[in-house]
Amino acid sequence: MKIIVLGGDGFCGWPTSLRLAKAGHDVCIVDNFSRRNIDAELESYSVTDIRTLRVRVDTANSLYDNRGKITQEIINVAESPNKMIDLFKTFKPDAVVHFAEQRAAPYSMISHNHRMYTVDNNINGTNTVLSTIVEVDPNIHLVHLGTMGVYGYSKEFGAIPEGYLDITIKETNQDTSILYPTNPGSIYHMTKSLDQLLFQFYNKNWKLKITDLHQGIVWGTQTEETMAAPELVNRFDYDGVYGTVLNRFIVQAATGHPLTVYGTGGQRRAFIHISDTAECVKLAIENPPENTNRVRIFNQVSEVRGVLELANIIKEKYGAEIQFYDNPRKELAENDLIVHNEGLRSLGFEPITLSDELINDCKFIAEQFADRVKHKNVMNSPKW
Amino acid sequence: MKIIVLGGDGFCGWPTSLRLAKAGHDVCIVDNFSRRNIDAELESYSVTDIRTLRVRVDTANSLYDNRGKITQEIINVAESPNKMIDLFKTFKPDAVVHFAEQRAAPYSMISHNHRMYTVDNNINGTNTVLSTIVEVDPNIHLVHLGTMGVYGYSKEFGAIPEGYLDITIKETNQDTSILYPTNPGSIYHMTKSLDQLLFQFYNKNWKLKITDLHQGIVWGTQTEETMAAPELVNRFDYDGVYGTVLNRFIVQAATGHPLTVYGTGGQRRAFIHISDTAECVKLAIENPPENTNRVRIFNQVSEVRGVLELANIIKEKYGAEIQFYDNPRKELAENDLIVHNEGLRSLGFEPITLSDELINDCKFIAEQFADRVKHKNVMNSPKW
Repeated sequence: MKIIVLGGDGFCGWPTSLRLAKAGHDVCIVDNFSRRNIDAELESYSVTDIRTLRVRVDTANSLYDNRGKITQEIINVAESPNKMIDLFKTFKPDAVVHFAEQRAAPYSMISHNHRMYTVDNNINGTNTVLSTIVEVDPNIHLVHLGTMGVYGYSKEFGAIPEGYLDITIKETNQDTSILYPTNPGSIYHMTKSLDQLLFQFYNKNWKLKITDLHQGIVWGTQTEETMAAPELVNRFDYDGVYGTVLNRFIVQAATGHPLTVYGTGGQRRAFIHISDTAECVKLAIENPPENTNRVRIFNQVSEVRGVLELANIIKEKYGAEIQFYDNPRKELAENDLIVHNEGLRSLGFEPITLSDELINDCKFIAEQFADRVKHKNVMNSPKW
Repeated sequence: MKIIVLGGDGFCGWPTSLRLAKAGHDVCIVDNFSRRNIDAELESYSVTDIRTLRVRVDTANSLYDNRGKITQEIINVAESPNKMIDLFKTFKPDAVVHFAEQRAAPYSMISHNHRMYTVDNNINGTNTVLSTIVEVDPNIHLVHLGTMGVYGYSKEFGAIPEGYLDITIKETNQDTSILYPTNPGSIYHMTKSLDQLLFQFYNKNWKLKITDLHQGIVWGTQTEETMAAPELVNRFDYDGVYGTVLNRFIVQAATGHPLTVYGTGGQRRAFIHISDTAECVKLAIENPPENTNRVRIFNQVSEVRGVLELANIIKEKYGAEIQFYDNPRKELAENDLIVHNEGLRSLGFEPITLSDELINDCKFIAEQFADRVKHKNVMNSPKW
């Protein structure tokens, strides 16, 4: 297949692009290096020594000689609706993967400008992709990375279904299924809730084929493909703004810093390893929706864990200390969480669980990159 | 009170600004003349001879000597987050009325660029206002013009409540109240659905005081205030893109054109006279929400009518002919509609109904402006 990966230079986008190319698909990476620019803004860089996209792509192409070819286009998706039309007409993709969104909740909550940027970039980006598909070829399958955060964390709605909630309307006593009532916890998560309504309308009006993957918190660094050469190494964030909770703990353990638990650590969240991100996207692309009656929504998660539970696992294995901090976020101190993920499992997804890969990631970071960690960035999250 | 009216040069914004000033409030109109620019793009101008904003404002101030003063600021809200901060800090508003959105469903469906513009302008505009309030003074009351179109037109949900739907979750058998599941019929309506999620999050996280007015289809031209001098005349659109259905019929009747009914005319919609728009906004501002537990949502509607029913009323009164056309829109051919509007009524709203004002508007247009109507614009709606 021919696949465009928007945001293909990023933490999830890069290993996914490699996975797709290795599987024989031609991949066109579109990126504007916004994430690398934010590194400069926050003075917090990937712990791993990531190479330029050109070096990454050339190295990958030299390794995957007989399989899919990777190309690159430097485009700001949100600001370039006409360039996107040209690209789609030229490349003729069968599918598009959309990672091109500002992805950090804390970043979206820093200031007025960060609230504006996150909404502007994410919503215009998604609308550009959808509108371009309408214009060029409504049969192109769009695979979007959503978030478990659109559901929010409330007890009253029961186990988290895959996108749609079965309800009874009280006035008419009629049963129906609705898009799960959204309850985002940050401006970033809110943009993914807005995305859902964009998908709903474009699907309804133009019958677009859309898969929305509500992903859990991604952890880990490397995949089989990124380990094939030092030039292919994936990025790894450990700071309070872009680092996800388990990756922050891994770096803290690897560098002798206490594990920073927000609040009681009673928050339960869904997790997934970076290698499974790539695998799930591949499964979604290779198995497009059978009909366009509604947007196909999958929960892209491997397992549910509590934050303190994670800290305790790492404490036991590595002798790390745990330190509790006031939670900078507005969220429930403790919550239950049960998440359905039968959709991707029915396509063959077999999750990598925490115990399998955790040691490898810790060792990899500790041995190769520990001296690149700046401890001042560990607690740089804004409060909200 | 001190009130900023965003989009105060427009069809609803201008008469509302006058109503507020006449009631003694100081009004700062913010506009970037986007609607006047679109007149040039579509080659379809207001039937009435609207004056420049400067002339409008100076005339109003000369009439309302002892009451509220009107000022004007030429700002593109969506593109000027920092100018908005400066304005809010200087003017120190108690309330902001947000009309600054591209408001035509057909316009939003013309092309790729129109889809992009409508989402970009409307969502960045709303986010700018909300984020500015957070930054400058979270006590400022935001009154937003939503649309009945966010509810969509489906039979299964019963009478349309004011914003929130009572449901039972099937899995847990728990009763709860949720934001009404949205079902927009165009990119424009979709942006108002997105607005709702922006309001929901800003209210939840920063306790902002927000009133969202889901308005019906506005008809009519003049209000008591705009009739006070020729320089104050309101705009009036009759074309297939910006003209609302009843206003299109009024112009058609006044100029001897057959009434253009889309489909069977079995679509039932909620209507409101332009003078009531101004009145309802004034009521909402003068009676802010008592708490910030959730966004306050009112249905701003006077009565429900069927499209063919409207055409028949005008046919009987003015001898106009009716002509049926293929519906350019994707919508149900026929629907029932019952709409709650107790919220605004509880604040004192007494609707002007169709029969009261219809004749005046027809006469006004026919006598003064019939020669300005271009019949080629009557059927210029895009299809979707």
